[in-house]
Amino acid sequence: MPRPSLREQLLSAGLETLHRKGFNASSVQDITDAAGAPKGSFYNHFESKEVLAVEAVREYQEQKRVLLDILRDQKLAPLRRLRKYFESVNQAAVVAKFSTGCLLGNFAAELSSQSPVICERVGEAFARWSDDVAAVIAEAQRAGAISRNFSSKALAEFVIHAWEGAMLRAKVQKDRAPLDLFLKVTFSRILA
Amino acid sequence: MPRPSLREQLLSAGLETLHRKGFNASSVQDITDAAGAPKGSFYNHFESKEVLAVEAVREYQEQKRVLLDILRDQKLAPLRRLRKYFESVNQAAVVAKFSTGCLLGNFAAELSSQSPVICERVGEAFARWSDDVAAVIAEAQRAGAISRNFSSKALAEFVIHAWEGAMLRAKVQKDRAPLDLFLKVTFSRILA
Repeated sequence: MPRPSLREQLLSAGLETLHRKGFNASSVQDITDAAGAPKGSFYNHFESKEVLAVEAVREYQEQKRVLLDILRDQKLAPLRRLRKYFESVNQAAVVAKFSTGCLLGNFAAELSSQSPVICERVGEAFARWSDDVAAVIAEAQRAGAISRNFSSKALAEFVIHAWEGAMLRAKVQKDRAPLDLFLKVTFSRILA
Repeated sequence: MPRPSLREQLLSAGLETLHRKGFNASSVQDITDAAGAPKGSFYNHFESKEVLAVEAVREYQEQKRVLLDILRDQKLAPLRRLRKYFESVNQAAVVAKFSTGCLLGNFAAELSSQSPVICERVGEAFARWSDDVAAVIAEAQRAGAISRNFSSKALAEFVIHAWEGAMLRAKVQKDRAPLDLFLKVTFSRILA
């Protein structure tokens, strides 16, 4: 019988390792080493590294829920919530010294031709994230704070893509400037 | 004495392989197989896969020069050139069935923590690309076709990041919709 706590340790170490090193640069041994577990234990809990990666995307979404809660803070006006949310997302990247970037973007770049099952999960995570952002944009549009000539969904997707690209550039330069630029242009031209 | 033609074959096969499969999923043998060359020949021409990847970024920029020439077509107004350029970039991604994405974005996502030398080359390539796009945005700003409340450099970088993110999403979904959305929002809200 697999112990649930070891599975959780492997998942947590797996997420951290895959996020930092990427999928193909991480071996199962890297993950078991990071979890302080014997290599053989891995396959008691996950059929393959690919199966763990699918679970890691789910776990990553869970971890990001705290940030997403900002979007639901009814004490703030919707546009203010959107700004605070993206400021917090940027701040998290700065604190991490741009070492990891966004797991969804990383997997999209690395695995789109390699793993349909991871791709599908990443696609679902992007769609869910867009829906969460779009809901607040729609609120702001109803309040007249954001122009309505694009749908809330279109604006949410554009903004998330712009953030993903800014994160890639921040990561490659180890520099927050692309993330700061994202905020400035987004809130004066897109969410406006 | 290494034959220059074999070096070129290895570089071309290396670029194609690294672009399609990513850096860590491509072995030196994958590259020599794709070049139809014996595995041992690789190290007569490149010290390592990393050295080849640096050269591959340079070669990639060369290949993209045909598209960049659109930006210099003085027969078209600057804003028209920008649109035609990004339409052509999108079309190339559609023709490739989203199988590869952008080499710069892929390497940024996969290698930022792994290879300082590839990162530096990718950073230079992004900067060069931004300069090329910014020059045309500046022309359009002088002609009054694009608002001047952001610098041409800031707008160029934002737009390139937005495209990179849209490409990631198009790649993961195998769907042109994110690229079409990029064009629509960019040319009505950013380059406007």
